[in-house]
Amino acid sequence: MTIGIVGMGLIGGSLARRLVDRGVKVVAWNHRPHPYAEAERAGIHCVPTLAALVEARPDVIVLCNPLKAMPAILVELKPLLDAAPDITLTDVGSVKGMVRDQVEEAGLGECYVGAHPMAGNELSGWTAANPTLYDDALWAITVTPDTDFNRFLAVARLIVDGVGNRVIVLDDDTHDKAAAMISHMPHVVATALINELTANPNRNIAAALAAGSWRDMTRVALTDPDRTRAMVEEDAANVEGLLRDMAARLNAVADLLHAERTAAAPSGAVDPHVAAMRRFFAEGQPFRDYKARQRAIAARGDGADDTSDDLAYEERLVDFAPEHWQADLLDSARRGEHIIALAGPHTVRVQLRSAL
Amino acid sequence: MTIGIVGMGLIGGSLARRLVDRGVKVVAWNHRPHPYAEAERAGIHCVPTLAALVEARPDVIVLCNPLKAMPAILVELKPLLDAAPDITLTDVGSVKGMVRDQVEEAGLGECYVGAHPMAGNELSGWTAANPTLYDDALWAITVTPDTDFNRFLAVARLIVDGVGNRVIVLDDDTHDKAAAMISHMPHVVATALINELTANPNRNIAAALAAGSWRDMTRVALTDPDRTRAMVEEDAANVEGLLRDMAARLNAVADLLHAERTAAAPSGAVDPHVAAMRRFFAEGQPFRDYKARQRAIAARGDGADDTSDDLAYEERLVDFAPEHWQADLLDSARRGEHIIALAGPHTVRVQLRSAL
Repeated sequence: MTIGIVGMGLIGGSLARRLVDRGVKVVAWNHRPHPYAEAERAGIHCVPTLAALVEARPDVIVLCNPLKAMPAILVELKPLLDAAPDITLTDVGSVKGMVRDQVEEAGLGECYVGAHPMAGNELSGWTAANPTLYDDALWAITVTPDTDFNRFLAVARLIVDGVGNRVIVLDDDTHDKAAAMISHMPHVVATALINELTANPNRNIAAALAAGSWRDMTRVALTDPDRTRAMVEEDAANVEGLLRDMAARLNAVADLLHAERTAAAPSGAVDPHVAAMRRFFAEGQPFRDYKARQRAIAARGDGADDTSDDLAYEERLVDFAPEHWQADLLDSARRGEHIIALAGPHTVRVQLRSAL
Repeated sequence: MTIGIVGMGLIGGSLARRLVDRGVKVVAWNHRPHPYAEAERAGIHCVPTLAALVEARPDVIVLCNPLKAMPAILVELKPLLDAAPDITLTDVGSVKGMVRDQVEEAGLGECYVGAHPMAGNELSGWTAANPTLYDDALWAITVTPDTDFNRFLAVARLIVDGVGNRVIVLDDDTHDKAAAMISHMPHVVATALINELTANPNRNIAAALAAGSWRDMTRVALTDPDRTRAMVEEDAANVEGLLRDMAARLNAVADLLHAERTAAAPSGAVDPHVAAMRRFFAEGQPFRDYKARQRAIAARGDGADDTSDDLAYEERLVDFAPEHWQADLLDSARRGEHIIALAGPHTVRVQLRSAL
């Protein structure tokens, strides 16, 4: 396996170093050559142009460049990849629908499979690159009904065999909706919280009384607001819907608090508003149970004595049909299964990691 | 100074131990005597009844019992305190309006001053009691226009001289509104987030993609939901208003995201929706700046070299008028000043800790 890396920042540089550490041949290009000397010493073959990268005939080229550089890089890659049709193109962007639109606009849709590693930290650049960034990471691979199965396999092998990570297979829309749910929308909520405090006439008093709950819930609002805004706007339709859902949930609790104080309960009966409030606080119980189980398994991994099967991730083999592998693997992801090995031509080994 | 403590759990036990460590005479009562042997060895004089506690003639009695025990304890204290009118009564409850209502219902309003220490952790009970729980803590003292100045002074001396902590002076309503802002309302928001995930058809996929931002924003939703519900219902009117504000903020962003995608900007002009979105992400900047300054000062306290005055808390003397000391000290709290010493009959020394 030979992998081509475009962009040697935190994500691309860490990926290149991890692949080399695991015995995979890596050829890399960066828009500026400053990481090249150190990268060469680490065993990464650095090349001066994208043409030279394609000439090295990697199985997969991974686009790890900034999103804003994407259109220009795709234009440059188009004639090169037309002359090298065996190379599969993937990327590591965090909003998949937008990247696919750009790839298709460049005429490269046929050779493209989307990918998004759940890896990163607050650092950036080659100097921060570290192969451990990918320890125990999950990647999403995104496909369409038209995605070529062999190109999917090339990217899956890169992740599972090359990087040693887990994979779930999604379509772009499912990925972007899920990212809106657990990241993009919550970033807006955190920002609204600090705006609400800033607008409060007694903001110094409230800030003085703030403790751990406030600190945790607003931490992401302290990061670069322009980057957050760009992220939200790239996934706008999904974030919009979730914000309206959240607003409706908050108004519903406000209505219940109002009714509890003002509406008399029928004598002898449980106040229906109290019952509804209890339901609000119970609705998320599956997530509390899921987190408790994840913590128990993580504690066992940290060297706790308990070796009962209850505290291990269940593994199983999942077959998929050649004619609708995309849908079968999406169903597997919906069940909370993560692919940990390509076990046969139409079989994957999965670990049940999330099961809410 | 002699202090009486009612209830020797985490908060009361830690307070008793800290006061003894700092040379203050402490007499304590607990509804069950199990902590008494260890407490006596720590220098805390334990008594078998509330009558014996009052007979010890403490300057201040601090109610550290659970809220649900409050009515019965107040009924028992009423005749005892009627016979000992010099004793001032205070408490450590986290919702001040409700405690004052209970105290006044018991006929003890005249001798009462409210208090709320910003101290605590996830533990409970005497075995978890630790004097360091109060290290660098801030207390709110809550007063009314009728509060006797000398009773306020007794509680302020207990906190500043006895415990060695900072104080801000508030009215009950300002306290409970601020607590709703930075704790009670955000707990509902965190709960709504996990409910939204639980209701998501792709919840296993979303949970698999979750990273640090999601974990931090939902941590408080994992704590006991019944305790959270009780806390929210005790401060219902304030939480209701803030939830409606937050819902309006989230709907406003949803509207902007919709308009950015669908409304054409006048040619040559900046899209007004884009400008409004930028304002949303800029509104909370004073809080970001405040947090950056707090972090810089904390880093200096941790032994960093920078000793410039920019990185110290400014101190000053604040005078207040004897006839409206409540309003003058509330204004000081609004400016972000924390009382660190009683500097004269009508003067306090303050530190500028929060200044958003």
